[in-house]
Amino acid sequence: MAEIKKQQWTPELAEFHKELGDKNMGPLWASVFSAPEPKPRAVPYLWKGELILEMLEKAKELLKVGVGSIDRRAVYLINPGMKHLEPHGWGGATQTLYAAVQALNPGELAPPHRHMTSAMRFIMKGKGASGVVNGVKYTFEPGDFVITPEWCWHDHVNEGNETVFWMDVLDIPFTSALTSSFLEMYPESRQPVEHPVDFGTKRYAGGMVRPISDRRPSPAPLGRYKYDLTIQAIDGLKELEPDPFDAYIVEYINPSNGKDANGRIGARMQKLPPKFKGKAHRHTHSVVYNVYKGSGYTVMNGVRFDWKAGDIFVLPAWTWHEHVNTSGTEDAVLFSANDLPIMEAFGFEREEAYTENGGHQEIKSEFVPEYSKNSVYIK
Amino acid sequence: MAEIKKQQWTPELAEFHKELGDKNMGPLWASVFSAPEPKPRAVPYLWKGELILEMLEKAKELLKVGVGSIDRRAVYLINPGMKHLEPHGWGGATQTLYAAVQALNPGELAPPHRHMTSAMRFIMKGKGASGVVNGVKYTFEPGDFVITPEWCWHDHVNEGNETVFWMDVLDIPFTSALTSSFLEMYPESRQPVEHPVDFGTKRYAGGMVRPISDRRPSPAPLGRYKYDLTIQAIDGLKELEPDPFDAYIVEYINPSNGKDANGRIGARMQKLPPKFKGKAHRHTHSVVYNVYKGSGYTVMNGVRFDWKAGDIFVLPAWTWHEHVNTSGTEDAVLFSANDLPIMEAFGFEREEAYTENGGHQEIKSEFVPEYSKNSVYIK
Amino acid sequence: MAEIKKQQWTPELAEFHKELGDKNMGPLWASVFSAPEPKPRAVPYLWKGELILEMLEKAKELLKVGVGSIDRRAVYLINPGMKHLEPHGWGGATQTLYAAVQALNPGELAPPHRHMTSAMRFIMKGKGASGVVNGVKYTFEPGDFVITPEWCWHDHVNEGNETVFWMDVLDIPFTSALTSSFLEMYPESRQPVEHPVDFGTKRYAGGMVRPISDRRPSPAPLGRYKYDLTIQAIDGLKELEPDPFDAYIVEYINPSNGKDANGRIGARMQKLPPKFKGKAHRHTHSVVYNVYKGSGYTVMNGVRFDWKAGDIFVLPAWTWHEHVNTSGTEDAVLFSANDLPIMEAFGFEREEAYTENGGHQEIKSEFVPEYSKNSVYIK
Amino acid sequence: MAEIKKQQWTPELAEFHKELGDKNMGPLWASVFSAPEPKPRAVPYLWKGELILEMLEKAKELLKVGVGSIDRRAVYLINPGMKHLEPHGWGGATQTLYAAVQALNPGELAPPHRHMTSAMRFIMKGKGASGVVNGVKYTFEPGDFVITPEWCWHDHVNEGNETVFWMDVLDIPFTSALTSSFLEMYPESRQPVEHPVDFGTKRYAGGMVRPISDRRPSPAPLGRYKYDLTIQAIDGLKELEPDPFDAYIVEYINPSNGKDANGRIGARMQKLPPKFKGKAHRHTHSVVYNVYKGSGYTVMNGVRFDWKAGDIFVLPAWTWHEHVNTSGTEDAVLFSANDLPIMEAFGFEREEAYTENGGHQEIKSEFVPEYSKNSVYIK
Repeated sequence: MAEIKKQQWTPELAEFHKELGDKNMGPLWASVFSAPEPKPRAVPYLWKGELILEMLEKAKELLKVGVGSIDRRAVYLINPGMKHLEPHGWGGATQTLYAAVQALNPGELAPPHRHMTSAMRFIMKGKGASGVVNGVKYTFEPGDFVITPEWCWHDHVNEGNETVFWMDVLDIPFTSALTSSFLEMYPESRQPVEHPVDFGTKRYAGGMVRPISDRRPSPAPLGRYKYDLTIQAIDGLKELEPDPFDAYIVEYINPSNGKDANGRIGARMQKLPPKFKGKAHRHTHSVVYNVYKGSGYTVMNGVRFDWKAGDIFVLPAWTWHEHVNTSGTEDAVLFSANDLPIMEAFGFEREEAYTENGGHQEIKSEFVPEYSKNSVYIK
Repeated sequence: MAEIKKQQWTPELAEFHKELGDKNMGPLWASVFSAPEPKPRAVPYLWKGELILEMLEKAKELLKVGVGSIDRRAVYLINPGMKHLEPHGWGGATQTLYAAVQALNPGELAPPHRHMTSAMRFIMKGKGASGVVNGVKYTFEPGDFVITPEWCWHDHVNEGNETVFWMDVLDIPFTSALTSSFLEMYPESRQPVEHPVDFGTKRYAGGMVRPISDRRPSPAPLGRYKYDLTIQAIDGLKELEPDPFDAYIVEYINPSNGKDANGRIGARMQKLPPKFKGKAHRHTHSVVYNVYKGSGYTVMNGVRFDWKAGDIFVLPAWTWHEHVNTSGTEDAVLFSANDLPIMEAFGFEREEAYTENGGHQEIKSEFVPEYSKNSVYIK
Repeated sequence: MAEIKKQQWTPELAEFHKELGDKNMGPLWASVFSAPEPKPRAVPYLWKGELILEMLEKAKELLKVGVGSIDRRAVYLINPGMKHLEPHGWGGATQTLYAAVQALNPGELAPPHRHMTSAMRFIMKGKGASGVVNGVKYTFEPGDFVITPEWCWHDHVNEGNETVFWMDVLDIPFTSALTSSFLEMYPESRQPVEHPVDFGTKRYAGGMVRPISDRRPSPAPLGRYKYDLTIQAIDGLKELEPDPFDAYIVEYINPSNGKDANGRIGARMQKLPPKFKGKAHRHTHSVVYNVYKGSGYTVMNGVRFDWKAGDIFVLPAWTWHEHVNTSGTEDAVLFSANDLPIMEAFGFEREEAYTENGGHQEIKSEFVPEYSKNSVYIK
Repeated sequence: MAEIKKQQWTPELAEFHKELGDKNMGPLWASVFSAPEPKPRAVPYLWKGELILEMLEKAKELLKVGVGSIDRRAVYLINPGMKHLEPHGWGGATQTLYAAVQALNPGELAPPHRHMTSAMRFIMKGKGASGVVNGVKYTFEPGDFVITPEWCWHDHVNEGNETVFWMDVLDIPFTSALTSSFLEMYPESRQPVEHPVDFGTKRYAGGMVRPISDRRPSPAPLGRYKYDLTIQAIDGLKELEPDPFDAYIVEYINPSNGKDANGRIGARMQKLPPKFKGKAHRHTHSVVYNVYKGSGYTVMNGVRFDWKAGDIFVLPAWTWHEHVNTSGTEDAVLFSANDLPIMEAFGFEREEAYTENGGHQEIKSEFVPEYSKNSVYIK
């Protein structure tokens, strides 16, 4: 981002800079395009689960999902540091990631479409919903991770009897930056289902093996990653030393190529055992965290963010962070989505451990939400 | 980019949208993140060579390049469609590409640094300058293409007796969007030169062969692509049918991996023979054109942009365009830089030919520069 | 393989051919290097489990494994069609694969070495043995699949109280053909163990997720694939339609890259349900089958090979084959190793389904072992 | 290759080994499959140009090329160390490479076919011949390098008025070892020509740039590499330090992917300046050298092989070698083909410099051809 150098320019130069600006040019010598280290526009932030649910309850009263009505009942999270970009910007939770929470009532259908943005969902609460991704129907249960890679048809339906809530993460800010958004609506209100229910999940019921027909790389051989198998994997790690930063952590993979399950968006699940106090580090990729179980806090650039199940918080690029489980008896379980695949594709990923003070940041303040009376949506 | 849907909301909903905004959230149903087709912020635009040179002449009077003074005397091009992003934005010529023209006087030295942004230079005018890239000194001659891939040390010096002008293209808007800008200054005023002058160029003096020590992929085995060899290649094509859009066109490659010479930024050189009248197409990648020889015009989304040697014009993403050489006797030669490698890395590239009207757009207007009295640099 | 064309040559030509041969040259016109289809030297063959065990019992009486004695007590399988290549050849079970059965008695240690050939083991019988692969100790249990990729140190020890039997598969014929055999003996009688026992297995205890530290491709993040997790995966497939050729079949993968677990040698496990009668097909890769459970037969190029648990049989390249489970109540479980990764690396893999006779070959004869009194080992 | 260990076995063991052999099994403990270093079957060898031409002259008298007659008039080179493999073997010049010299008379047509083996040709002498590769006609001139990657249709014709001679190199021993030979005859006596003559060569007339339509990797964008452009490239190197082993050497590349021009077979051209005395090294890949100009010698494993233009000599895997130009005034020019791409595909390539005696082997003897009266072609 270009900043204007804080420097006393002569009147002649100031006049010249103005002339350049008038003519759609700029003076490189007076601009800062590159800094010694990344300075993300996004700030560390946290949205309380209660607040998100309260907003979705209002949305449920005011709006119905379905054909002829709204397509998706989702409230997205706007990083306060990027708020000035709205409505000109793109509603980013971080530099590259959009995050929202969606609610689908019994009987509602979110009709099918496809887009160049990648999408993933983490099921937070409720049973009975399902989604169809390119002709395969996947049922949603709490803790499941469901993928919708780019340009795959997808719709959602709730055939149960309670509202189902999930978090959506898409790479909208990234695809917006590249001006590569294509979108297509499906001509029917639902896709035909062409395979047995939970096809991919049945094909991947156990260890590190795959059906031989998935030998060729493909975008979504396994559409839904069940919570219980993931937890089984994490619990296997408990016999080993915990990672100093993340305790017991795994990432979801595409079994046809060993890459991230969702292509451009990485996804992970981690358990912090009781009283786990992680060390601090930072990296160029950014992260959206969804607290699935337990309670604790994360220190980001010296600010303590307390969290409990249902909360969502974001870690911008190159931001020091450390996680703590404050419970003495319960595990904390965090799901997270990241833009690491994008950063790695161009060699941008860097990581650094915090070495001072035994690896722990000094806590300078506690997080206070920045509610504004200056909403971008006021007319 | 999120637009607000043009829709009559009930007072309750309007109030709710405002409340969401206050709490750093947004209503997905009232936002447009994805459109059926890309809508670039950038607009087609052209900067006349005379204007650019005039600005650089002023800069030469007002500023000196060197240690203790300014690092680079470069005037960069601001796409009017992205101007509102300044100074908060990044000075993009297109969605991902920064472009500037730089002038280096005899005796001046632009000191060494390196950054995560990729850089390339196209030498426009003047002799006697040279650059050192990771210990290899390359002399600059008009028409040469010189690369500085990410994180390579580079400096420039003019040891001749005339001012040398070149165009710089970097992927600053892209690396800014990913918050991945690292920058490091070299501890000395010049890098040591570790190889014979024009080392890479001497190693690639002929056909499609390489020194066997360049068998392993590396970022810049050949640092400078000489104009005469490139023209020899283009002239070989003249015995074949011209491309309907681009006549005789080649792209610079890295001989160690067959990919684009500069990694994340593609570069091409093309000749339009006398009276060539290209057909229209559009693609998701964006382009910066530098007219090296000749004169003609390019129609972009129905607007005719006349150009001649020295002019620079930009093609945003997904914009219809067709090139015409108006001379009956002279070739036109265009150098261009593009973000195709970035688009391809994630499967974003799409292309479409214009099929109506024999492949030619209706010309609705002629380009008029939009000079503004409302410069972003006014204090 | 060059055959001499069956043709009546003139006396002058016959004389000329002889002269060429004398001078270390050959007449291309009189040779057949390429045929319309592959003609493998290897033939379909089967070794009965009882015979293999009988031979190993003799070897146990006559030889002891350990430092100062023999390194490995293994009996390898010689394809009769390649027998004439012994001792000049390489003891291939197929064109590229060596297969052997190894027996390790309680208290014996097979000392560490490493080689450029890839190795894998399938544990057939017995408990108490383990292997150390590059510093990680893996315990062996029946049905487990254990890998030793190229140039990894490996040794084996039996700390239990019964003999343990396993099948080794290596790509010795392939590495021999490429003259790329390097071998190094470890300076000590055992490697130090640097990680918790069964480290990799504990790190991969569940679904399609991996520890984040295995994000970078590496040769053996998971050294042993446990039988029970593999069977859990296969049983997940039973809700779906069986594969017409192979019923329920999975292949072992390296979770860091999605490629075959063992690099150059593929490995699979399959279940044929009771009364399964597979269809015939052929492919250019060759296979070594190890019958782990059940009984049935496989028809290869019209010959019926009956098998039961403990038997090993080989399928040469481009050979029609179909599998049948003759039991009405029990599953048959086949482990198999193949050279598909080698074939695919150069685009050599082709596959063809048998379309006549409902997809089933006519059975022309039953397999009879070809015991020879003309052993290559007679002095 | 399995050797039998030179060891005194007890009578019981000897009897047991025999029994195993009778039953198509072998004792691992008595076999040597892996050695500390590769021991190639192939030996260093040289065929004098005069001898090859003499043989081809006889072949010209005795045989005519064309439809209804023989397909190709080629005499192939049999490595004496692999001679015992004939006719069961594959006529290898090295472990993986077949080499032959072919003569085509004015008016003759070698009809089209295609095969899974890769082929390349180096034009040694004569003008007027040409080949059609997948619909592109390439004219042949001395010093040109022409490729025929796997499964490409190819035929040759001589429309001039002198006999044309070229060396063919194919990977027949390699594809034979993998049993992957497919061959198909073209239904007509000639292929239709679908592009302008020398299409690829015209598209690559200069420096390191390519037509943009060759951006996607393809097997043969450039079918013929002209001698003069290759020499221009080599001469560019002369301003730099010569390589200690190979003086001035380049390798032919595929401009669409930066890999070897012919996929599985590497090809190089090198100039040894007058009095150049290279140092010795060895590597796991094997090489066929064709002396195009000049005279000198190569020491291989202590034996001196004198050569001059027209001679062909072979370097087996892991063989010490050093090249010397004995002329005080003339350059020596060597074309060579190698199996490096095959070795690298599986990580098999290793290289070692000879460090004793200033990098030069002691010359123990001079090469004497091993003419045999025991030809494999005698009936």
